Amino acid sequence: MTLLVVGSVALDSIYTPFGETADALGGSAVYFSVAGALLSKVNVVGVVGNDYPVAELERLASRGIDWSGVERADGESFRWKGKYSYDLQSRETLETRLGVFADFQPRIPKSYLSARFVFLGNIAPELQHSVLDQVVSPTLVVCDTMNYWIQSKKSVLMDLLKRVDILMVNDSEARELSGDWNIHRAGRWILAHGPKRVVIKQGEFGALLLEPGRTFYVPAFPLEEVFDPTGAGDAFAGGFMGYLARAGQTDSEHLRRAMVYGAAMGSFAVSQFGIKGFDGVTTVDVEQRVRAFHDLTSVSLAERVP
Amino acid sequence: MTLLVVGSVALDSIYTPFGETADALGGSAVYFSVAGALLSKVNVVGVVGNDYPVAELERLASRGIDWSGVERADGESFRWKGKYSYDLQSRETLETRLGVFADFQPRIPKSYLSARFVFLGNIAPELQHSVLDQVVSPTLVVCDTMNYWIQSKKSVLMDLLKRVDILMVNDSEARELSGDWNIHRAGRWILAHGPKRVVIKQGEFGALLLEPGRTFYVPAFPLEEVFDPTGAGDAFAGGFMGYLARAGQTDSEHLRRAMVYGAAMGSFAVSQFGIKGFDGVTTVDVEQRVRAFHDLTSVSLAERVP
Repeated sequence: MTLLVVGSVALDSIYTPFGETADALGGSAVYFSVAGALLSKVNVVGVVGNDYPVAELERLASRGIDWSGVERADGESFRWKGKYSYDLQSRETLETRLGVFADFQPRIPKSYLSARFVFLGNIAPELQHSVLDQVVSPTLVVCDTMNYWIQSKKSVLMDLLKRVDILMVNDSEARELSGDWNIHRAGRWILAHGPKRVVIKQGEFGALLLEPGRTFYVPAFPLEEVFDPTGAGDAFAGGFMGYLARAGQTDSEHLRRAMVYGAAMGSFAVSQFGIKGFDGVTTVDVEQRVRAFHDLTSVSLAERVP
Repeated sequence: MTLLVVGSVALDSIYTPFGETADALGGSAVYFSVAGALLSKVNVVGVVGNDYPVAELERLASRGIDWSGVERADGESFRWKGKYSYDLQSRETLETRLGVFADFQPRIPKSYLSARFVFLGNIAPELQHSVLDQVVSPTLVVCDTMNYWIQSKKSVLMDLLKRVDILMVNDSEARELSGDWNIHRAGRWILAHGPKRVVIKQGEFGALLLEPGRTFYVPAFPLEEVFDPTGAGDAFAGGFMGYLARAGQTDSEHLRRAMVYGAAMGSFAVSQFGIKGFDGVTTVDVEQRVRAFHDLTSVSLAERVP
């Protein structure tokens, strides 16, 4: 089924202990799409400036990404510059230049309006509302946000929560939104304010799916080499939504599987700079990684304690 | 099969945001035993001063703990005083008074010498060696340690690693021992230096079992109320060893199950001050908790992606 993502299409400059990169393809919609396209066609809505290496985007189109909803505006593209600590546990934003992204007004192309699976990437909550005003009765709406919007646009965001099926955030965002440091209480608080489910990403510690009365946990893949954590959360979202769009199902068991596909995509994302971790990755690789995840938590309790 | 633990028997004074306790039963051997005894008889070797509330220990004996290996020495018992941060994520040691523990020389009673399952709690590595010099061909030896010994007794500890089957430490200890911040590389480093397996505890993020070529991950239980994290790691060890001693098996599948029993015991430990989290807990409760853990990571991948 059709999968639509609205989010940032950016140029990232990243410094890690293992190297650096300048003006590389990045942004939430880009990471989401390269991951999601391994499982489903992805339609992207975003904006770039007239300095963007559009040919590089177009090269990714062959993977199943439709960029025709990405506007080209007059001005500079969104740029982010960040530096990671020696152990990749923390990062510092060195520079954020919004450029044309500052005036972004998502316009969903007619051919995308009937998308069944919609992911609202981390953009201003008013714009996320605007996307929902445009699309026609989607099957599943998942949205992301960030601490900046939680602080500056809390009431718009709280209204948005009533319109989405799943909120997908990281642990610090869940804590800030709920005002509760306990991640499980924070999740329950979110469930009481609109979404039927909440996904809380915990970086190298995996991710949680909270449903009423039930919780699912997927660990992060045990990687001995992590190169660049940028975009891992967006790649997770892409795998999660890509799997659901492919399966066309949104029940609890499919959501659990979607979590594993998300975690698999996160593990590809961190294995190289930027989106390079997806170069050469096939659906066979994805299935293998998903099965490796399964073995990671697999335990039989059939035998009773003697 | 018989289970032997050698470790500290202490009096803990703990301050958390939810209350405080003074001179409560604590120490690695005590937490280990109350957890382990839910699955197996436990024999304890340790030392207390003549100020210790021995009657309180004896009351626990009915749960299946044999304290006859705990010496009563002339002097003060080991006391620890600690304070947790508001979110229980960090703690400060306010006071450590070793008392009679400073001169502890473990003497394994004759009736314990043939113990099949041996847990070397966090004591000086020379003393851990001394325990292994005394016991007669155990089936499984698991040992704990701490940063203090890694820094001050590294070579004695490295010799010890060649004599144990499993090293069970927390993530910061694994990192310090190996000199590697990546927890999976740290685990592989430890495997290359003696133990056939390594268990790395990650507090609220669960625990890893690393074997050659295979990793198992058990999350922490999703608790909305965590009261006191003290002793959770020792309770984990008690559940892990208690399950194995009860099953009498040490293969990969039983070790995975043992991880789940360990995590279940950790979740009881943190639910109240000190060892109170185990008050009234039955083997039926343990089995229920273990099954709840199973559901937490359970996902069927049988169906192929459509």
